[in-house]
Amino acid sequence: MKPNPQITTGPMPASSKLYVPGSLHDIRVPMRRIALTGEGPLTVYDSSGPYTDPAAQIDIRGGLPAVRGAWLTGRGDAEPYLGRPLTAADNGFVDGKRLTPAFPHQRDPLRATKGAVTQLAYARAGIITPEMEYVAIRENEGRTAAYTRDGEDFGASIPDLVTPEFVRSEIARGRAVIPANINHPELEPMIIGRNFLVKINANIGNSAVTSSMEEEVDKMVWAIRWGADTVMDLSTGRNIHNIRDWIIRNAPVPIGTVPLYQALEKVGGIAEDLTWEIYRDTLIEQAEQGVDYFTIHAGVRLHMIPMTARRVTGIVSRGGSIMAKWCLHHHRESFLYDRFDEICEIMRAYDVTFSLGDGLRPGSIADANDQAQFAELETLGELTKRAWARDCQVFIEGPGHVPMHKLKANMDKQLEHCHEAPFYTLGPLTTDIAPGYDHITSAIGAAMIGWFGTAMLCYVTPKEHLGLPDRDDVKTGVITYKLAAHAADLAKGHPGAQMRDDALSRARFDFRWQDQFNLGLDPDTAREMHDETMPADAHKVAHFCSMCGPKFCSMKISHDIRATAEKQQGMERMADLFREKGQLYVPADG
Amino acid sequence: MKPNPQITTGPMPASSKLYVPGSLHDIRVPMRRIALTGEGPLTVYDSSGPYTDPAAQIDIRGGLPAVRGAWLTGRGDAEPYLGRPLTAADNGFVDGKRLTPAFPHQRDPLRATKGAVTQLAYARAGIITPEMEYVAIRENEGRTAAYTRDGEDFGASIPDLVTPEFVRSEIARGRAVIPANINHPELEPMIIGRNFLVKINANIGNSAVTSSMEEEVDKMVWAIRWGADTVMDLSTGRNIHNIRDWIIRNAPVPIGTVPLYQALEKVGGIAEDLTWEIYRDTLIEQAEQGVDYFTIHAGVRLHMIPMTARRVTGIVSRGGSIMAKWCLHHHRESFLYDRFDEICEIMRAYDVTFSLGDGLRPGSIADANDQAQFAELETLGELTKRAWARDCQVFIEGPGHVPMHKLKANMDKQLEHCHEAPFYTLGPLTTDIAPGYDHITSAIGAAMIGWFGTAMLCYVTPKEHLGLPDRDDVKTGVITYKLAAHAADLAKGHPGAQMRDDALSRARFDFRWQDQFNLGLDPDTAREMHDETMPADAHKVAHFCSMCGPKFCSMKISHDIRATAEKQQGMERMADLFREKGQLYVPADG
Repeated sequence: MKPNPQITTGPMPASSKLYVPGSLHDIRVPMRRIALTGEGPLTVYDSSGPYTDPAAQIDIRGGLPAVRGAWLTGRGDAEPYLGRPLTAADNGFVDGKRLTPAFPHQRDPLRATKGAVTQLAYARAGIITPEMEYVAIRENEGRTAAYTRDGEDFGASIPDLVTPEFVRSEIARGRAVIPANINHPELEPMIIGRNFLVKINANIGNSAVTSSMEEEVDKMVWAIRWGADTVMDLSTGRNIHNIRDWIIRNAPVPIGTVPLYQALEKVGGIAEDLTWEIYRDTLIEQAEQGVDYFTIHAGVRLHMIPMTARRVTGIVSRGGSIMAKWCLHHHRESFLYDRFDEICEIMRAYDVTFSLGDGLRPGSIADANDQAQFAELETLGELTKRAWARDCQVFIEGPGHVPMHKLKANMDKQLEHCHEAPFYTLGPLTTDIAPGYDHITSAIGAAMIGWFGTAMLCYVTPKEHLGLPDRDDVKTGVITYKLAAHAADLAKGHPGAQMRDDALSRARFDFRWQDQFNLGLDPDTAREMHDETMPADAHKVAHFCSMCGPKFCSMKISHDIRATAEKQQGMERMADLFREKGQLYVPADG
Repeated sequence: MKPNPQITTGPMPASSKLYVPGSLHDIRVPMRRIALTGEGPLTVYDSSGPYTDPAAQIDIRGGLPAVRGAWLTGRGDAEPYLGRPLTAADNGFVDGKRLTPAFPHQRDPLRATKGAVTQLAYARAGIITPEMEYVAIRENEGRTAAYTRDGEDFGASIPDLVTPEFVRSEIARGRAVIPANINHPELEPMIIGRNFLVKINANIGNSAVTSSMEEEVDKMVWAIRWGADTVMDLSTGRNIHNIRDWIIRNAPVPIGTVPLYQALEKVGGIAEDLTWEIYRDTLIEQAEQGVDYFTIHAGVRLHMIPMTARRVTGIVSRGGSIMAKWCLHHHRESFLYDRFDEICEIMRAYDVTFSLGDGLRPGSIADANDQAQFAELETLGELTKRAWARDCQVFIEGPGHVPMHKLKANMDKQLEHCHEAPFYTLGPLTTDIAPGYDHITSAIGAAMIGWFGTAMLCYVTPKEHLGLPDRDDVKTGVITYKLAAHAADLAKGHPGAQMRDDALSRARFDFRWQDQFNLGLDPDTAREMHDETMPADAHKVAHFCSMCGPKFCSMKISHDIRATAEKQQGMERMADLFREKGQLYVPADG
């Protein structure tokens, strides 16, 4: 009996969990193995955590096992301390029955005893951490050699196989990050960088109506089941602290937040009343909980705000608009910018990664690539250097809404101004005329900018601009972004990307329907669509589908052609003859 | 009371029909005007025909009015004749109750009295036909000047405003086509070419189970309601002739077919039994009915077939595989290639446009841009010249399955080998790993290749590779391809494309929810999604949505910022000061 029937568990179709051991460290790296009927199994990247492992005991009241526990204590550079006390404001002053229960098992938080405990600090010191070996193994997906290298990578440096040393060197030069708060021992580490697989993020968040912790945890579990590599908790309102605790304790993926949202809650939603002290307190609160990356809109500077005056859609970043309002009201530079070095001190003590927010990103095609956007980008580059100077890990957020012909400039400018720190974009949407379909308008931009070098793509669901995504919308958004990220990997010439395409194509050509479904990103939907018109089991081996029927199935005819040709002479030999002699088809009796 | 309750009629939300008269000819060009609450109306392209005009009397038993009737007779170069007699084979030997009734009003077909009656022949002779003036007006969408020109067009020549003479010159040089059979007088002409708006095609077709003619007509009406510019009838099986008649008589858009499918039916589905005589008879049968363009796989030559031997997915074009089988069996060049000049004689006598089929297009990422594909493309270029020499209109079909980094080469080679004849691609899919989501994997490729210069995009529905699309799938496919085509227009710098994006973005920023819905490609879905969480009418004027709620609405805060700034000094003036002086924010009392 499942202890938490609300949580989605169980393996993906035809899939089993595989754990690959490390050679430097005591680690077990999870992968998913898809069993096939007509050829050997395919091993693929697996972000879903223990929830898809039938051997795992899932109980969200206990949280996930602390896979990183020994690694963290083994380093001896951080120690537990009596954390910041919980306040009523942390949960929006809710009490009694409306208060979400606290997560039952509270650990004392860890904090650096001195200096930085970041992956960047270790990398610079020449140390290959367990996290680094873990992601190196993970990125190879069981490959021992390159499969196919055929792409245009625009100057990236993707190796045939990822080694732990390569991971270390990429982190050391700031070109990749492993978001991994030392207070998130449940994390299965993953890496974000241009020379690795393109990653995707899914946003979740409670609505104004109180959600239960099971519901919130399941949103996260559901998103990673379909392939989300990180999850941002954008909750606002009541119970925000306690729900976040439940999410992190049960999250095998990095959790990101925008601490400004909670800080704003603490001042009753009045942007002008925000202070550095309240913000700082919120950073520490969330760092102690184990949030792996913070979106911080420190690039919105006072002098940039007038640059948005003539925009069609003004400032569309929530964090950006809140800080702009604060700046204008107080007539001064934002505390995020002024106190940036102090923020770095917090980040390095827990290894919270900076996601430098693009508060002035465009909110429409009309505003793309404007002065405000690029002025902020330059500031983000300046802040990147300041964060790196303190051994903090950094990635950079990007737009938003950008037509196709302006995408490349975004990537090029980001690489230039931000010194190759990883880029993390929201889409971008390539047109504004399709509300209800913005997962698609943005998947076009996401695939392209991923190809150009963006390391992580933040998903957009069909509900974007219209309302809160439900379970189906989250799945649609995640699958859409997985396919966009994969299209980008293919185009970059990632040495393993084409394995899955080819395996699926072979299954398709061989009429191995079950293999075709199971190799897809969403086996359930593919199977359902096929079964709408051909439900019988016999049809799962049929040499045609209902699209064309047996007489018009090109693949069936292709098989007939091969059989005919092979009977005559062997098609391969005919092909060779043609290639050798460059002449017309050689008849069987020639 | 509607005479045909099965047919979808009625205007799109907040929209009315507008007819713009010509100045050279007696024509009325339909457009759609979207009424807005906060600004003047927006006029957009309208492919939906009389079905969205409340003033139109729709009765599919009578067919649509013959808007081109007088234009055709006025030219005096074609005359009615006693057409080819209907045979039992034309409807798959079905009779009695299972026979779909013939369309009630049969006209004698028109045929050229001598020479060519093609738009290309007229254009070369310096004649601006009513069709040419019609599409010129249509392409401008009510604009009298360029709106915004900001794009990368890769060497296209898109004018600020389309003139009838520009249309004529583009057709004369083969760079654009108006598919318009002289036996399709119900047609509202449209143009396909790189220097015009990117168009989309939707495929329909009856399944093995007999469909009623109402169902088939409504599939077409449904597809054009959402924006399909042309419709291909890919029906096979029984009643194929009679159903096609019902479709064409009720179609305001060009109808395309693959005549080989019907020819194959006539020989009981045995590819080897196909003959030039049966094929020729089918061409004439369909030309007399009024089919506007034929897909003809004349580029599949005998010596190319062995080039597909090592492919992962062989030959995936139905027409291509049928012809390859024929060629192999008979050990000779296909009759489509051998008899190409005779085919041209038929095409020019009715002005049926060639859609030169890519029978060897790749069916998987693995097979993209291979020797077979490009060998065929070169042959299509040779055939283009032969067709042009006989004054036939031509466009070229393209792939299929192509990863992003190989897309541009497809466009470049097509332009080079096919002498700028319009390109018409199927997607292409940019990855094979997402069955059930191939409308999206292919929309990425479609948007990009549309940007690079492809003139028309053939839609892919979510059911691709899995089964026959239903009504919802058709709509999803059409909307997805409309947004991809529009993203391409934006990126090319089409001088009118951004008007709609900007109008929608202004509506969004102003919280004009109804305008935002109505300006979108699918107002119904956008409205439904919004209403799931905020159903009340009062919410349609709310200055926030359920995504972020009132406290976190960036657009609401942006308005607050503008109001604050304007009270202080005027944000525009501050912006000017900043721009002039390049200094930090100037305080109110400065």
